[in-house]
Amino acid sequence: MLTEAENKTLTETHPSSAMGNLIRKYWQPACLSQELRSDGAPLRIKLLNEDFLAFRDSEGKVGVIEPNCPHRGANLFFGRNEQCGLRCAYHGWKFDVKGQCVDIPNASEQVAIQLKPKAKVRALHIKEQADIVWAYFGEGQAPELPKFEFMQVPPEQRFVSKKFQQCNWAQAVEGGLDTSHFSYLHAGIRDGMKVGLHEVSSRNQVRGDNEPVSLKRLRWLAEDGAPRFTVKAHKAGLLLCAARTGDQGQTYWRMTQFLMPNHSLTPGNFPEDTSLANTWVPIDEHSCWIFCYAWHPDREIGEKERARLAAGSGIFAEVDDDFMPIRRRENDYLISRERQKTVSFSGIEGISEQDQAIADSQGFIADRTKELLVQTDLGVVRFRNLILSEVMKENGAHPLGSQDPDAYLVRSGDHVVPQETSLDKVIQERFGNYGGQWI
Amino acid sequence: MLTEAENKTLTETHPSSAMGNLIRKYWQPACLSQELRSDGAPLRIKLLNEDFLAFRDSEGKVGVIEPNCPHRGANLFFGRNEQCGLRCAYHGWKFDVKGQCVDIPNASEQVAIQLKPKAKVRALHIKEQADIVWAYFGEGQAPELPKFEFMQVPPEQRFVSKKFQQCNWAQAVEGGLDTSHFSYLHAGIRDGMKVGLHEVSSRNQVRGDNEPVSLKRLRWLAEDGAPRFTVKAHKAGLLLCAARTGDQGQTYWRMTQFLMPNHSLTPGNFPEDTSLANTWVPIDEHSCWIFCYAWHPDREIGEKERARLAAGSGIFAEVDDDFMPIRRRENDYLISRERQKTVSFSGIEGISEQDQAIADSQGFIADRTKELLVQTDLGVVRFRNLILSEVMKENGAHPLGSQDPDAYLVRSGDHVVPQETSLDKVIQERFGNYGGQWI
Amino acid sequence: MLTEAENKTLTETHPSSAMGNLIRKYWQPACLSQELRSDGAPLRIKLLNEDFLAFRDSEGKVGVIEPNCPHRGANLFFGRNEQCGLRCAYHGWKFDVKGQCVDIPNASEQVAIQLKPKAKVRALHIKEQADIVWAYFGEGQAPELPKFEFMQVPPEQRFVSKKFQQCNWAQAVEGGLDTSHFSYLHAGIRDGMKVGLHEVSSRNQVRGDNEPVSLKRLRWLAEDGAPRFTVKAHKAGLLLCAARTGDQGQTYWRMTQFLMPNHSLTPGNFPEDTSLANTWVPIDEHSCWIFCYAWHPDREIGEKERARLAAGSGIFAEVDDDFMPIRRRENDYLISRERQKTVSFSGIEGISEQDQAIADSQGFIADRTKELLVQTDLGVVRFRNLILSEVMKENGAHPLGSQDPDAYLVRSGDHVVPQETSLDKVIQERFGNYGGQWI
Repeated sequence: MLTEAENKTLTETHPSSAMGNLIRKYWQPACLSQELRSDGAPLRIKLLNEDFLAFRDSEGKVGVIEPNCPHRGANLFFGRNEQCGLRCAYHGWKFDVKGQCVDIPNASEQVAIQLKPKAKVRALHIKEQADIVWAYFGEGQAPELPKFEFMQVPPEQRFVSKKFQQCNWAQAVEGGLDTSHFSYLHAGIRDGMKVGLHEVSSRNQVRGDNEPVSLKRLRWLAEDGAPRFTVKAHKAGLLLCAARTGDQGQTYWRMTQFLMPNHSLTPGNFPEDTSLANTWVPIDEHSCWIFCYAWHPDREIGEKERARLAAGSGIFAEVDDDFMPIRRRENDYLISRERQKTVSFSGIEGISEQDQAIADSQGFIADRTKELLVQTDLGVVRFRNLILSEVMKENGAHPLGSQDPDAYLVRSGDHVVPQETSLDKVIQERFGNYGGQWI
Repeated sequence: MLTEAENKTLTETHPSSAMGNLIRKYWQPACLSQELRSDGAPLRIKLLNEDFLAFRDSEGKVGVIEPNCPHRGANLFFGRNEQCGLRCAYHGWKFDVKGQCVDIPNASEQVAIQLKPKAKVRALHIKEQADIVWAYFGEGQAPELPKFEFMQVPPEQRFVSKKFQQCNWAQAVEGGLDTSHFSYLHAGIRDGMKVGLHEVSSRNQVRGDNEPVSLKRLRWLAEDGAPRFTVKAHKAGLLLCAARTGDQGQTYWRMTQFLMPNHSLTPGNFPEDTSLANTWVPIDEHSCWIFCYAWHPDREIGEKERARLAAGSGIFAEVDDDFMPIRRRENDYLISRERQKTVSFSGIEGISEQDQAIADSQGFIADRTKELLVQTDLGVVRFRNLILSEVMKENGAHPLGSQDPDAYLVRSGDHVVPQETSLDKVIQERFGNYGGQWI
Repeated sequence: MLTEAENKTLTETHPSSAMGNLIRKYWQPACLSQELRSDGAPLRIKLLNEDFLAFRDSEGKVGVIEPNCPHRGANLFFGRNEQCGLRCAYHGWKFDVKGQCVDIPNASEQVAIQLKPKAKVRALHIKEQADIVWAYFGEGQAPELPKFEFMQVPPEQRFVSKKFQQCNWAQAVEGGLDTSHFSYLHAGIRDGMKVGLHEVSSRNQVRGDNEPVSLKRLRWLAEDGAPRFTVKAHKAGLLLCAARTGDQGQTYWRMTQFLMPNHSLTPGNFPEDTSLANTWVPIDEHSCWIFCYAWHPDREIGEKERARLAAGSGIFAEVDDDFMPIRRRENDYLISRERQKTVSFSGIEGISEQDQAIADSQGFIADRTKELLVQTDLGVVRFRNLILSEVMKENGAHPLGSQDPDAYLVRSGDHVVPQETSLDKVIQERFGNYGGQWI
């Protein structure tokens, strides 16, 4: 539970807010690479309560710049993206990806030379990596990009997308960190009884001795709705470990990474499975873009899996051409009360959509002054504490992880062990050096 | 005419307002019984500027509760209505119709036992009667339900519905009390001349000696647009009596009941006719639900009449599946300027729709600081005075009628008498003991 | 560049604003004559941040009155327009085009006689001329109508319309005065190169010795994007003269009239061409109506030209039945990035739509505190200075042109002269006495 002031601090990211100041010290995904074509249409993007235009120039370089022409304030969105610059449609002033004004055709050459330096528009530091345009919204020197594993693998081993979420970023993050809700929100219903993850369980019906671990864990999710949480701090964030009772003296561990300031690597995967992660980038106080990453360290993401993810599966939502989820706030996520009785606990199709629905349902900004937290909310509590303490750091101090790209090379995932196994051993066995650089 | 402060007092019903405090001392219709199915979808209802969820449990009992789960604030609208409770879709906390938390599955049993009392959510007092879910929004002990006649008759003798109105509740009530507008707003046009009530008059053309009283009165309505009002106070509200000149020394009386704090029994009926009444329940300051009741003390409402009311007739609007009128503010009530020339004074189809249009047209909240009231506005004036004086009562005093259910067993209606007949005699003749318990 | 206070002064026109006070000292177009039929539907018009109803009575006279009935505040929009007055649909109070209350049928005759003078509603001074309903929003005596040339010609020589613009009036005016943008915003693209005005150039391909001046000037527009501006002040406003380099020692002059407080006569025409002008009337701070006038002093506007203007051409937009442009803010003016590469500089169809797009793109109210003005913005600067200085005039002083109808009988247009010709001679040659009454 937070005070009203703490809740405000956690959730607001406009340029004059404390959290806005913090998040601007980290690289953030600005858009997908595929959204920008060379000399194509500029893309309007609003992030952290600020408006920008992204465009890809004739040489393939990406610029993310202030949208208004410094001459008379016309929006460069209507400009022509031509010959390595965006040219204003009103009087032809032209700007390159760095925001430099490179042409002022409605003034004499002499005047133009003097004016150009004053006519520079704000441009973000940009790096394009892993099919994502990354931007650094801060001032001054940008740090190195964080070394996420999905950035390190070849393109064939990766699939990325994004989706729009109609609520404040922080409660959506909290949904990602709170893996205890898998036992409810994502559960299936069979014969009126709650069973494991609907999406998978409805396709598989093997039971008994031949039940594979991939199905067992769904059963464990359904059977143990009160997992025990342990949280470990590392140099880029937190490893959130949830223990559930398995079969015959076994413990089923699901381990989630939270990486500063707004990334998460999701659990639910064994080593053979595809890894998944998210970044929640605030648009304004009431909405955010959720960037979604799927990758495998060792093998390709095949065409079939790629098509499935693109159509909406797991953390990937079914979206339209503008990356707006088909099932969303305005249509109550197309909830079916009939299916809620017979097929899935939520009556909403899609893991992602279930997560989005429940986060939206907390309000545009969740009221954290009224809560009754329990032990399974430990991950959520530690996330809030970490953010609020980093926000408090002296001006000038580098917040956790921001200058430490290697600290982001971590993994999340599941493990099944005899119940007496220590958590340290669990982490070592499952992740080796990819657990985190412990603080 | 009111001061700005008085207008604010009259119209605002949020929990910290004076009128909000008053109205919370009376039972109010919350929704129709038919809107809630056992173990069916919860219904979002906003009333008196507060959000609630209504649901009917496995045993048929109705709950109207706060919408947000006390755990992490997820909206219980997405919950499962199952086995006598609404279970949150996020982590499975479950609440019964009284708001009691009956299950906290993501905590240990010991923790859950301690938490449940703290996890109670606000639930309104509920009674279901006359096909309506009645709620008491106040704190503490609820009084008895008011004994409206339509509550006392068997279901076959009653038909109820509701409709949405896009303006403040009070001006909509005033439209119901101001029966003088029948001579204009609801008039028909024939051969370019204003004639009686369009809806009826267009179907009937009998004149002269054989003209029945049901048509005569429509002619009187058209001919006498300045009725003389007398208002009598009783223990649940006001009896508003309007006298119009009839034929050959007769007086045509139309008598309307206003019942505290927001009910009205409409005039226009002789003893053989169906009785009609309304309740205007504020949703927020800019909209309200109008509950509509039709009944007859002695005979059934037949299938044909029932179908006609359901399709929109008289005080019943033509509505869609969500009880939104088809003809409404956004589409200018489908006014036809052609029909306004040739068929009806307003050019809008439907008595209800005409009333709704004119109330909406006064603005979202009518500006009562600018008015030029005349004698026919007496009912409106007395309504305002009564509300404002009841609002002023000492805290703790019971407002008029709130503890007096029998005082609501009154009737409204029309009567034709020789002009020398005293009003008291008129009332006695027409209503007997159903006029009101005079103060 | 303006201060924030100056920008506010320039752009706000509500009744208690300085600019609102200024503009109310001039006649303004309120609607098109064609929008009002005798005894037809009243038209809701919002102008200068105030709501009115316009209606044409049985005798053809036009009234523009306050919308709310003084009795109980019902909106007279739903009233009956009958027998020389608008009758309220609620209780039948009736008002004539002067706002006089001429009937109060729900009161006794004696009461009605006393009430009628108090029941007068505000009515604007109205004159109907040149197919336009002109209104004087100020108090007291209205001056004479300004003598625009399009008002003086017979109806056959004139075509008028209007269009909705979704931004503050002042930046839309500035777009009309800033003719330097013709070299960019309205340019065509051929073989990847910017060429003259797209709309015309795409239809004509004559070059070389036979190139007519009507095409030459388009080439000059494309070739000289930095015209030299000279501004001359006269008794109704400003003559803005832009010189571009023509062929072989010639200068191509384009001369625009700005007429107080919100009119412009556009350039681009030689004597044989149709003349064009606009008035930008604020609706509220974020939108305006642009009235569009086409006329020729000496010849008829033929059916073919009339049809072309009605369909959208030049300053006339393609509009729907409510005069809303088909290409507008919500649909990004149907910009085609493909056509922006190959056909037109903007990718937007229509000169008018290009102007509207770029003005809207400056924001709902352009931020004039952040600008980098150049010499070609001289006309814009002089417009602002003139408005701001007239706003500052002592109360009671008549602002420029407001009492001087003859000063509006001026013309705009183009001229081609040897480069040594003085501007005074250019103006004398091209306009004679129609240049302006110099101050």
